[in-house]
Amino acid sequence: MKLTAIVGATVIDGTGAEPVPDGVVLIENDTIRSVSRRADTAIPDQAEVLDATGAYLIPGMMDANVHLVATITPDLALQYEGRYEDVIAEAAQVCLAAGFTTVFDTWGPAGPLSRVRDRIARGEIPGSRIFLAGNIVGFDGPLSPDFFDVGDLFSDETRRRINHEWAQGVGADLAWLPAETLRDRVREYIESTGVDFVKYAANDHLGRGLIAFSLDAQRVIVEEGHRAGMTVQAHTISVEGLRMEIEAGADILQHGNLTGPESIPESTLRLLVERQLPIAALYFTNRYREWAAAEGRAGLHPNLFTEQLEHTNRRLIQAGANLLLTTDISAWGRTSDHPRLRVHRDAPPPRATLGEAHVAWLTAVIERGMTPMDALVSATRKPAEAYSHPELGRIASGRKADLVLLDADPLADPQNYLRVRGVMKEGVSVALDSLPSPRVLTDDPHRVER
Amino acid sequence: MKLTAIVGATVIDGTGAEPVPDGVVLIENDTIRSVSRRADTAIPDQAEVLDATGAYLIPGMMDANVHLVATITPDLALQYEGRYEDVIAEAAQVCLAAGFTTVFDTWGPAGPLSRVRDRIARGEIPGSRIFLAGNIVGFDGPLSPDFFDVGDLFSDETRRRINHEWAQGVGADLAWLPAETLRDRVREYIESTGVDFVKYAANDHLGRGLIAFSLDAQRVIVEEGHRAGMTVQAHTISVEGLRMEIEAGADILQHGNLTGPESIPESTLRLLVERQLPIAALYFTNRYREWAAAEGRAGLHPNLFTEQLEHTNRRLIQAGANLLLTTDISAWGRTSDHPRLRVHRDAPPPRATLGEAHVAWLTAVIERGMTPMDALVSATRKPAEAYSHPELGRIASGRKADLVLLDADPLADPQNYLRVRGVMKEGVSVALDSLPSPRVLTDDPHRVER
Amino acid sequence: MKLTAIVGATVIDGTGAEPVPDGVVLIENDTIRSVSRRADTAIPDQAEVLDATGAYLIPGMMDANVHLVATITPDLALQYEGRYEDVIAEAAQVCLAAGFTTVFDTWGPAGPLSRVRDRIARGEIPGSRIFLAGNIVGFDGPLSPDFFDVGDLFSDETRRRINHEWAQGVGADLAWLPAETLRDRVREYIESTGVDFVKYAANDHLGRGLIAFSLDAQRVIVEEGHRAGMTVQAHTISVEGLRMEIEAGADILQHGNLTGPESIPESTLRLLVERQLPIAALYFTNRYREWAAAEGRAGLHPNLFTEQLEHTNRRLIQAGANLLLTTDISAWGRTSDHPRLRVHRDAPPPRATLGEAHVAWLTAVIERGMTPMDALVSATRKPAEAYSHPELGRIASGRKADLVLLDADPLADPQNYLRVRGVMKEGVSVALDSLPSPRVLTDDPHRVER
Amino acid sequence: MKLTAIVGATVIDGTGAEPVPDGVVLIENDTIRSVSRRADTAIPDQAEVLDATGAYLIPGMMDANVHLVATITPDLALQYEGRYEDVIAEAAQVCLAAGFTTVFDTWGPAGPLSRVRDRIARGEIPGSRIFLAGNIVGFDGPLSPDFFDVGDLFSDETRRRINHEWAQGVGADLAWLPAETLRDRVREYIESTGVDFVKYAANDHLGRGLIAFSLDAQRVIVEEGHRAGMTVQAHTISVEGLRMEIEAGADILQHGNLTGPESIPESTLRLLVERQLPIAALYFTNRYREWAAAEGRAGLHPNLFTEQLEHTNRRLIQAGANLLLTTDISAWGRTSDHPRLRVHRDAPPPRATLGEAHVAWLTAVIERGMTPMDALVSATRKPAEAYSHPELGRIASGRKADLVLLDADPLADPQNYLRVRGVMKEGVSVALDSLPSPRVLTDDPHRVER
Repeated sequence: MKLTAIVGATVIDGTGAEPVPDGVVLIENDTIRSVSRRADTAIPDQAEVLDATGAYLIPGMMDANVHLVATITPDLALQYEGRYEDVIAEAAQVCLAAGFTTVFDTWGPAGPLSRVRDRIARGEIPGSRIFLAGNIVGFDGPLSPDFFDVGDLFSDETRRRINHEWAQGVGADLAWLPAETLRDRVREYIESTGVDFVKYAANDHLGRGLIAFSLDAQRVIVEEGHRAGMTVQAHTISVEGLRMEIEAGADILQHGNLTGPESIPESTLRLLVERQLPIAALYFTNRYREWAAAEGRAGLHPNLFTEQLEHTNRRLIQAGANLLLTTDISAWGRTSDHPRLRVHRDAPPPRATLGEAHVAWLTAVIERGMTPMDALVSATRKPAEAYSHPELGRIASGRKADLVLLDADPLADPQNYLRVRGVMKEGVSVALDSLPSPRVLTDDPHRVER
Repeated sequence: MKLTAIVGATVIDGTGAEPVPDGVVLIENDTIRSVSRRADTAIPDQAEVLDATGAYLIPGMMDANVHLVATITPDLALQYEGRYEDVIAEAAQVCLAAGFTTVFDTWGPAGPLSRVRDRIARGEIPGSRIFLAGNIVGFDGPLSPDFFDVGDLFSDETRRRINHEWAQGVGADLAWLPAETLRDRVREYIESTGVDFVKYAANDHLGRGLIAFSLDAQRVIVEEGHRAGMTVQAHTISVEGLRMEIEAGADILQHGNLTGPESIPESTLRLLVERQLPIAALYFTNRYREWAAAEGRAGLHPNLFTEQLEHTNRRLIQAGANLLLTTDISAWGRTSDHPRLRVHRDAPPPRATLGEAHVAWLTAVIERGMTPMDALVSATRKPAEAYSHPELGRIASGRKADLVLLDADPLADPQNYLRVRGVMKEGVSVALDSLPSPRVLTDDPHRVER
Repeated sequence: MKLTAIVGATVIDGTGAEPVPDGVVLIENDTIRSVSRRADTAIPDQAEVLDATGAYLIPGMMDANVHLVATITPDLALQYEGRYEDVIAEAAQVCLAAGFTTVFDTWGPAGPLSRVRDRIARGEIPGSRIFLAGNIVGFDGPLSPDFFDVGDLFSDETRRRINHEWAQGVGADLAWLPAETLRDRVREYIESTGVDFVKYAANDHLGRGLIAFSLDAQRVIVEEGHRAGMTVQAHTISVEGLRMEIEAGADILQHGNLTGPESIPESTLRLLVERQLPIAALYFTNRYREWAAAEGRAGLHPNLFTEQLEHTNRRLIQAGANLLLTTDISAWGRTSDHPRLRVHRDAPPPRATLGEAHVAWLTAVIERGMTPMDALVSATRKPAEAYSHPELGRIASGRKADLVLLDADPLADPQNYLRVRGVMKEGVSVALDSLPSPRVLTDDPHRVER
Repeated sequence: MKLTAIVGATVIDGTGAEPVPDGVVLIENDTIRSVSRRADTAIPDQAEVLDATGAYLIPGMMDANVHLVATITPDLALQYEGRYEDVIAEAAQVCLAAGFTTVFDTWGPAGPLSRVRDRIARGEIPGSRIFLAGNIVGFDGPLSPDFFDVGDLFSDETRRRINHEWAQGVGADLAWLPAETLRDRVREYIESTGVDFVKYAANDHLGRGLIAFSLDAQRVIVEEGHRAGMTVQAHTISVEGLRMEIEAGADILQHGNLTGPESIPESTLRLLVERQLPIAALYFTNRYREWAAAEGRAGLHPNLFTEQLEHTNRRLIQAGANLLLTTDISAWGRTSDHPRLRVHRDAPPPRATLGEAHVAWLTAVIERGMTPMDALVSATRKPAEAYSHPELGRIASGRKADLVLLDADPLADPQNYLRVRGVMKEGVSVALDSLPSPRVLTDDPHRVER
């Protein structure tokens, strides 16, 4: 039995409770045994004492939506083929070094992702704890019109091979199936791939607002996820997509705030708040929005990133919706000169890359009226609960000892989330200086230092 | 009062009843007064007698799906701009000369179509009787990704102007609306455009099998159509689209036989037959299928024109489904050298053009097991009933005097439908030799004479 | 015989000579009889006297490069088909109203252009005097990869028909011919089309800097033009293209200042100056350049509109090259919302449209060191001489009475060229208020009034 | 000193001389010492005797135009990045196993090609002897409009990196340079890359027939090649390109028979024959031509593979032109399902892949009138002389001992070239069974066995 005592930090436990100044967190092996004020605490003799006086201790953060394999351009899927595991490990280490002890990968190749997940879980390599959805049920892989319409620029075999790595039998051809026979395909997918949760397409990925599956079909997918004990979420971009997803019984609403040129109807908003349905919502800072407007590239997709989105985003906070920190982003590096990426690279920091983007999210929600404490809860307890992992996301007795030590108060300024002094995962201190290693992606000639 | 007696023809009344040899059809003004055997009939003295001995008299035919404005390439929308009415009139005359006294235009510009409809109805110009849907609710116009993704090859103003001519306020942006607010847009469309029936998108027009509207939204559209006393139909290309359309209450299933790589499920097929839901179904002849296979271009759209379609088509006939003759085609002429059209032009006759394509349909259904009499009924009584026009489609007392006189027995060989000796519409003989006039489209340098 | 005396204006005769204050220009029919000071002149009794006291009289201006049919987007070629003559006449009237009594159309459909040219020449309609090249020998029409790669979005027949209207037998297929057999094709073109001068492709129109014809082939084309008594010019975009064109014997160098990322070599520049070879050169104002840089769209074509171009443009003026006013532009109107046009439309005025663009040119050359007087000569005498029309371009005895009366001194401020009080062409006053008429193009909803 | 005697074969020495039946070829180390009849020969005691009775011995063959790195689709450039050397070695081994002891790679990445060349030359790995041009001077790399216009589907960095691997500083930007400054760039390229000969673009690679460099510029390139002691060749596709290349002084005319819709003019043909300029000419078999016509895909490029090409090809043979065996092809395998490759894959054998395509060439020239002996000389002595490697290409005293032993008479049937019993390169027998190894490309699921 190993005992560790982190002593002297202000402890912010992730639940929204008042910070505990000059606290002691006592850790037994991989689990928190107690949290208390130093004045009230007798530290066991055999405990290793870590002095954290003046620092701030928060739970290991959780990102409700990442993509550990960057496929922001289709050539990357090919360029890193055979090295996906390296790229995934690297991205997971970028996350860990930034204080994210857990990430939820909501679209990626299930094989390499699950292998890296397992290697990290077994302690073979460092990295964020990974939970993965694998494919978005109903979409094809990156070299398909759902993502990049590569025409005949790629050979058929390359396209088939790469797309299969993602689609895993639950690709766009599911659209043709009767709801009743869809069930077998989804079940087979869940059973064969080792995914941790299910994500399906409620809307298209074309920015059109079309519906990917009928309500009956969506119910089938949700049932199969639940039957396997998993949470289920959907990709939505429209008011109707969001409504159907809720009706179908989804547990988490992935970018549920994106509803195109229409803001979320009042009735739906009420429902979201009453049921406290977890929404992994995209938020943009004032600074980014000003920059994008000046550049004439509010960018990305005009149907999705509308003025209504800003309106929706303010209404969600005002109404008290259950929001999860979500970046929907990758670690990128050498590829940052692609037109599609420049909207991120040229933007003022914090930029849209793993390791920085969460600060943008936290800044943006606070700008729109959320309290700094609620913002912190959105990054800790709430994702844990939404994804049914109550053992994570808070500093409390019996929970996993996932902890981040910051040099400055995160409640005072979201930039302070970047001042990571130390990260502990399951009771083990992370060697931050060595991360990431090896560097495939982040050896970036264009990298702007903070 | 004007009386006309058509005497001596074999009368096939469109209901499926036994042909009446040596018959007399007595017409008063625009209406049939009686049908009888010559032996049993006293022809009024004042009646003009038309001798039709040896010929075959059938009801004026009806095509459940035509597009009078040919937009098989996007340049045509522009090339004929300002002359749509001429093009529509010409196409309606091609139809009339081929024996179609009524056509249902299921996608086109409502303004010009309704104006030509009215001019024909008032007798100002000859032509098939037109009923029109205008836009397919939920799709944009021809210069949009729903039909042709013209990128920036067309100026914005041109695109907006042409697309508006079709979309009329019920375009692709409807996808973003909540079901409840969709209602106003559809109602406004119905009230302002003068359309005769409603067609909406249940599936996409991208060949993807996505759903265009949720079931709730589809119900709203159907309700609004019915509220205005109109029949409602949907564009479907998938099993789920078809099922939802039925559930939403559509009256006619437009190309309901297209369900991609899946054939229609047995349960749906049973429903179709029990309720005798009218299906405007596409059929292809053996000859066409052989040619297309040899050419390696079964063509058109691989997701839609599959081997399953052939399987479905046989099952529908075997099960006794309620099929309507439908060509889904335009009159084309000078444009027949476009790659997209060559699949039609180079095919063996009868070709996929108004004035010929119906013979292909009639041939194909008979090849697949329908009796010649049922095929004729699919071209006459059934479309009339499906579209709620019981005054049309049969030779019977009290019905409109829409009649076609053929030189040879259509029940003996579908090619005989091309041997049109005379056409009467609402009691008036059509001057066939002068049709069409003027010739904008059909003055075709590539035209192959039959 | 009709005599007219314009009295009291400051006369700037287009030759570069000192202005004549309080002058008298005496016109006999369509020809200038004398220019003198009022103090020195006895005005014949029968002369109609036009009082121009306080105004400025300059020769009718000449634009060395216009395109009277706007095909800035390919849909326009189709949209205005059948009305090209109207569009040409309108553009010629826009020019005339702006003080251009002569324009040189260097790429357009020879048929309609020559017909409008003749109607204007016969006095049937008002308009700038037109000289035309028809096609650029070696390029295909607007619906071809040389201009717009429309793929199969346009039907073959449409493409063939429209492209033929431009190419007239001297299209891109000439690239395949041996130099010796090229001759016949060019001769046939010159003889059959009624063009006034010859323009050929020395470089590609792809922005690549490739060579369109070998030197031998270029010599053949120049010989055939000269044999027919015509001036010859080439389209060039590279140092080598320019050098070859000079070597081949071209009379005018069309946008000879465009040489991509390389500036004109010193040796070539010396040659240009020594021989005073006329260069129809594109110039951009400081204001436009600042705007374009700020907008990040120095725009148009990155290979062509480079920093080297600015360098070249300054060197040409400094060295005393023979520059001709050239706008290379069309009259545009309803189409100004096209992405390609917005670079013009959104730019600060004067904008790149006929009727305004010349002021930009005159401003730009003065900004780069040309004297205002030389700038005026570039718009009058020099184009006349370059195109071998010595009867035009100056106010002198025996020359055509093409005159423009300005309300303010053009040598004081190039904006004053816009203050047109009157235009006389061949001795006849133009009714400015009625121009253009009819308005097909310039009835522009986006038109920004000056 | 090692002596080997190949005894008993019919020796066809590559010069066109009569075959020597029952011959003895005596080899000392890597060089042929003598060729004689067995009856006339005393075989030294220490010689290793190889019994070749009944077989046919020909010189190691030479292919005047191959591409060892297959980039028939742009994804391959990326997919095999980092493994180019493996792919090159594999292709060189496919060639060697087919009897090609020497190949000339006329477009590829100079770095990996020269490294593999050197490894083969040092005997570290087996493979055809490689001579390489590296880039085609004036063209960009595979991810550029010169080959594949990938738009923004590839990240800028990927495009730059891959294209640089090919272009090596002599890419498409050379088009902008004055002829005089072009010289430095070409010289630098020759000096820094280790290439063996120079190939430049006389025409475009767009199938347009444009000229890539002026005659002066071409002369500069040829001079620089000759200055470095290298042979120079050009890529041509038009009559003018061919004429200019000859005038510029090129040593070898690469696919000089491709002249688009025009056949080679009589004057040029005479010149070719008089000077016996070596032409690396593409030929197609009757069988391929029939198949392609039936399939409607004479294919590849309609401007290049015309009926005139067939006409030219017959004229060249009839006139006695100096033709070199040239396949212009790659080894392909796993990528053969790409649309672009199917024209090869689906064609009747011998197919357009290294290891087979030479038989198609030999068959085709014989079908068009060349004697089987001359065909063999085109594959042996002629390429050696054209490329200034007189030590290769014939079985004669003092020449390199590059030899191929065939089981059947190649002069009787070109298919017999496939019956390779043994290959010797520089006096060393090749272990055919182990080639190629490793197999990156040729592990082809679609591979049709002969």
